[in-house]
Amino acid sequence: MPHSVVVFGAAGYTGALTAKLLYGHPSFELRALTARSDVGRRLDDLYPHHRIPLELEELDLDRHGEIDAAVVAYPHGASAPLVKALREREVRVVDLSADFRLRDAATYEAWYRPHEAPELLDDAVYGLPERYREQIRGASLVANPGCYPTAALLALAPLAREGVLDDVVIDAKSGVSGAGRAATDKTHFVAVDENVSAYGVPRHRHTPEIEQELATLGADLRITFTPHLLPLDQGELVTCYVTGNGALEDLDLDELYAGSYADEPFVELAAAPPGVRDVRETNFCRISVHRDPRTSRVIVFAAIDNLWKGAASQAVQNLNLMFGLPEGEGIT
Amino acid sequence: MPHSVVVFGAAGYTGALTAKLLYGHPSFELRALTARSDVGRRLDDLYPHHRIPLELEELDLDRHGEIDAAVVAYPHGASAPLVKALREREVRVVDLSADFRLRDAATYEAWYRPHEAPELLDDAVYGLPERYREQIRGASLVANPGCYPTAALLALAPLAREGVLDDVVIDAKSGVSGAGRAATDKTHFVAVDENVSAYGVPRHRHTPEIEQELATLGADLRITFTPHLLPLDQGELVTCYVTGNGALEDLDLDELYAGSYADEPFVELAAAPPGVRDVRETNFCRISVHRDPRTSRVIVFAAIDNLWKGAASQAVQNLNLMFGLPEGEGIT
Amino acid sequence: MPHSVVVFGAAGYTGALTAKLLYGHPSFELRALTARSDVGRRLDDLYPHHRIPLELEELDLDRHGEIDAAVVAYPHGASAPLVKALREREVRVVDLSADFRLRDAATYEAWYRPHEAPELLDDAVYGLPERYREQIRGASLVANPGCYPTAALLALAPLAREGVLDDVVIDAKSGVSGAGRAATDKTHFVAVDENVSAYGVPRHRHTPEIEQELATLGADLRITFTPHLLPLDQGELVTCYVTGNGALEDLDLDELYAGSYADEPFVELAAAPPGVRDVRETNFCRISVHRDPRTSRVIVFAAIDNLWKGAASQAVQNLNLMFGLPEGEGIT
Amino acid sequence: MPHSVVVFGAAGYTGALTAKLLYGHPSFELRALTARSDVGRRLDDLYPHHRIPLELEELDLDRHGEIDAAVVAYPHGASAPLVKALREREVRVVDLSADFRLRDAATYEAWYRPHEAPELLDDAVYGLPERYREQIRGASLVANPGCYPTAALLALAPLAREGVLDDVVIDAKSGVSGAGRAATDKTHFVAVDENVSAYGVPRHRHTPEIEQELATLGADLRITFTPHLLPLDQGELVTCYVTGNGALEDLDLDELYAGSYADEPFVELAAAPPGVRDVRETNFCRISVHRDPRTSRVIVFAAIDNLWKGAASQAVQNLNLMFGLPEGEGIT
Repeated sequence: MPHSVVVFGAAGYTGALTAKLLYGHPSFELRALTARSDVGRRLDDLYPHHRIPLELEELDLDRHGEIDAAVVAYPHGASAPLVKALREREVRVVDLSADFRLRDAATYEAWYRPHEAPELLDDAVYGLPERYREQIRGASLVANPGCYPTAALLALAPLAREGVLDDVVIDAKSGVSGAGRAATDKTHFVAVDENVSAYGVPRHRHTPEIEQELATLGADLRITFTPHLLPLDQGELVTCYVTGNGALEDLDLDELYAGSYADEPFVELAAAPPGVRDVRETNFCRISVHRDPRTSRVIVFAAIDNLWKGAASQAVQNLNLMFGLPEGEGIT
Repeated sequence: MPHSVVVFGAAGYTGALTAKLLYGHPSFELRALTARSDVGRRLDDLYPHHRIPLELEELDLDRHGEIDAAVVAYPHGASAPLVKALREREVRVVDLSADFRLRDAATYEAWYRPHEAPELLDDAVYGLPERYREQIRGASLVANPGCYPTAALLALAPLAREGVLDDVVIDAKSGVSGAGRAATDKTHFVAVDENVSAYGVPRHRHTPEIEQELATLGADLRITFTPHLLPLDQGELVTCYVTGNGALEDLDLDELYAGSYADEPFVELAAAPPGVRDVRETNFCRISVHRDPRTSRVIVFAAIDNLWKGAASQAVQNLNLMFGLPEGEGIT
Repeated sequence: MPHSVVVFGAAGYTGALTAKLLYGHPSFELRALTARSDVGRRLDDLYPHHRIPLELEELDLDRHGEIDAAVVAYPHGASAPLVKALREREVRVVDLSADFRLRDAATYEAWYRPHEAPELLDDAVYGLPERYREQIRGASLVANPGCYPTAALLALAPLAREGVLDDVVIDAKSGVSGAGRAATDKTHFVAVDENVSAYGVPRHRHTPEIEQELATLGADLRITFTPHLLPLDQGELVTCYVTGNGALEDLDLDELYAGSYADEPFVELAAAPPGVRDVRETNFCRISVHRDPRTSRVIVFAAIDNLWKGAASQAVQNLNLMFGLPEGEGIT
Repeated sequence: MPHSVVVFGAAGYTGALTAKLLYGHPSFELRALTARSDVGRRLDDLYPHHRIPLELEELDLDRHGEIDAAVVAYPHGASAPLVKALREREVRVVDLSADFRLRDAATYEAWYRPHEAPELLDDAVYGLPERYREQIRGASLVANPGCYPTAALLALAPLAREGVLDDVVIDAKSGVSGAGRAATDKTHFVAVDENVSAYGVPRHRHTPEIEQELATLGADLRITFTPHLLPLDQGELVTCYVTGNGALEDLDLDELYAGSYADEPFVELAAAPPGVRDVRETNFCRISVHRDPRTSRVIVFAAIDNLWKGAASQAVQNLNLMFGLPEGEGIT
């Protein structure tokens, strides 16, 4: 019997895509979609290409809370109270916001805002399956990673585990869907088309998330992270420049990465630098690692689809793990 | 001595570009820029690439009305009262809105809204220099044509004059800047990118403008006009499908068009169908005429830059004519 | 037991996509891929995002001809001899070229070139399932329609059947993948980006194909068809301008189209003009029909993905019919 | 009296744009255009938007060598012999290739190929006016910088002069025109659209050029330089990540950059990270410098138009200096 699920906040790009993936998922039954705007409209009116004939409903926990699983696609800050309410009803939750990604409430509050449910932080598992697969299997609350951290951590984890990272610069490039559905001066076609520029300089809020997870792998360092907005829809590329300690020079990089990801169904290794087209509308992360013999620096590229592996399909991957389902069900 | 000029409504795309052209114009002195939003911001903050270090000011006719010339880049309806006030001060005006394009107030009101200054309609000259050059020279109020009518009329005028038009379908394609600076669901990058669709079906408001002007050339007919939004910034292509009466078949089209536009500095004829890149950031209209021997239909393509010949540079072309200056000054 | 199938000419866009669809198809076993260029390369090297780990092989009918089904994705003219050889081995064939679309060899030769296998024309069924579903079920050779005819015929068939078409203008807009994989001056990014222009004026070779099929529905007329190239990858929109006889005015268009396509799994009707994003990477054709009360003209829009419904997924839809499988298997 | 000039290799993007700028230049007379392909075609046939009605001619030094000035837009390696022949005729040359950028023939040969005219290296001046204005004024041979080095050096020179650079990573993003006019798998619209990827990893040939010029400023270090291809036409952004020695922390960056570029007509400083749209079709380089207080790293962004300041307009800027003309003549 399928598990009942509701997507909370399905009017945005990531919520809507999660709804689409769950609507076609053989082991989940998508009970309802809620939204904070556009209540009463059908999702296939807002997103014709998703073809989901369900109406966006106003949140009503009495109706929407009697479920097995929830995906919450609310903005940061707005998410925590809803997650708390759902957890009180024993609903298993994947949260797409940043509210439960940072283990330390103080760090969250330094980068975001006062935390509304810090008591849940201990229960939350960081939802990067390639790192925390077992913990996710037993979790009742999964904090879905940010899109940039997903790509950056998959790119850097093998090196971090080896203890060879001295310094890391991450130059990231993202399509416009990463900026969300809000129509603003920044997302206007004319502002983006034939353009490229950096944003969030020098303190983008995905920085502490990347640092936290590198530290759990033994690489306790401050990174430099700079995202850029590109004239494309979906896709994200991180270019990671790694300065290592002496041991980095002796590593066989190909062997290291091949070994690290041999059993990972959604990580691909490539000889050539990946393009975001290679992973468009998939849950794959495609990685290529290069050494510059002139500087001894190592460059790691990782490409994902920011709406898929960077958000919605990774949320479903986490749900699959939480409910004991095949990890790729509904997303391949 | 240069003529003093103010651009009213310089925060939008066409007003800002007009400001840029006039700022560098040797015979005009750009005295001020007004705006309805963004008052207090500098234009080079809103539009860095225009490099105009002037501040957007709140409208104050006592300060802004003591000038020789005005360009009004207000929305339809908002324009008429301002134009009226400026005309009362004997300022010569080029109006970029639709408010004075339609000679008949009733037609205007059927397609737009109640007219706020119908008494000025008789004075207004339709600002298509290739059609009304002499009248513009003597005009105190010029109604700058819509972008689609500019391209469509230049494409069709030679045939209209010959009296051979029986039926016309105009399929138009426009870049997103034609939709203006407002950030909406329709102008969001993700909505436009990798997409194309029609809008304004079946009653786009440029229709009566095209029909009015064809009628003055002897072609009194109802046209079909359908614009489409394309994933590009600036540029507009009209594809005109002409069904003619018997006389059309006997016309030497190349000769007709060459003769019609031999002396026109801003109309180019081309053997191959034009692309909008060919005219990007210019005041040119590039036209190509083809006959389909199988159907006897004639197809005329015309490409312009919607912000230039379709708005701002044509406004300057009109100002040049009104003030007895070389027609291409400041726009070539 | 799955049916064995080979894709001949899998290095191009449509052949490669057909290979991808058949590789994941539960009822076909993709035995091999052949190519005329790039022999020896793996398809996932040429097209990483398709993820098909098969090598492109040189054609060898002894090895490649012992199969149940073939998809031929050769250029026009090159296809006919291969199709003939495959038919001699009793392989059931879907041909993506134009070689068997036109029933009359003389018409083919007037628009294309000498025909290499005219004796097969009588056996060939035009592979538009919405028109010839039953014939396709029994066919051994299916001529997959051109992309433009697919969209145009689905848009116009209901009106053609009613006998109300007097004159039709089809203005088509296509993404660059429609021009194929060859790197040319026309497909260079810089030529296409920020541009739009018509091509194939006034005699594009999809014209006789559309006329032939309209005639079979009772609408024997010469159409005007003009395609335009747009700065996008996949997607095709046809805007059909229909001048009708008197009976057209009395038709209830919504009822007509709803009735015509009520049972069609891959035709969608929409109130608003469709965008190509709505059907991207799907086998759907999305249609919207509008009447202009001022001119009595009817405008029908139809959007498809040129590589999917316009080529590869329609080929699989046809294969499904030919082998008695569920029509949407492997393409939904 | 204007100086006579010929553009050698005017069929490519940079040569054609140089031709356009010189055609409209008040102090030069564009005598001829030569080309290695497309001989006999008119430039306005190849590049309609440039509107230069001159024919591309086969090289004939007897006709084309009797001039005051030459711009050579040949590929690397092909340029040196032609430059040599022109210098023997005492023509003053701006060379757009890499052949005379590297002072050391051995370095050139390590990164490119055998050098055909090493005896001219001592005479060649590196044509970055902001660095070598006086030397360019007296030069007979100017090596126009590469596009990436132009942006990178303008971004980094103030820091290099201060002696605070310890390590530099340059992550560069470029539009497709930087890859030249050749139609290849890499420049096909479908390969670039909705994509981003790195190329030239880890040894792009602009690396030694940047290192050479940083060394002349006192910063003798090995840099990491990685360019990425973006789905846009013209424009280039470099993001420079600077690790400094202790003295970097004490620098007032805003003051340093303001002082360095106070008198530079074509360098703009901006508080916000620049976009390439800000400098499109201009000779400007727009720079923004930021310090990350968490890591003490400094990030410098510089945006140029790769075809203008990165090639053609900088070539004209150099010609202006060489002939004692106002530096911005013909390019503002």
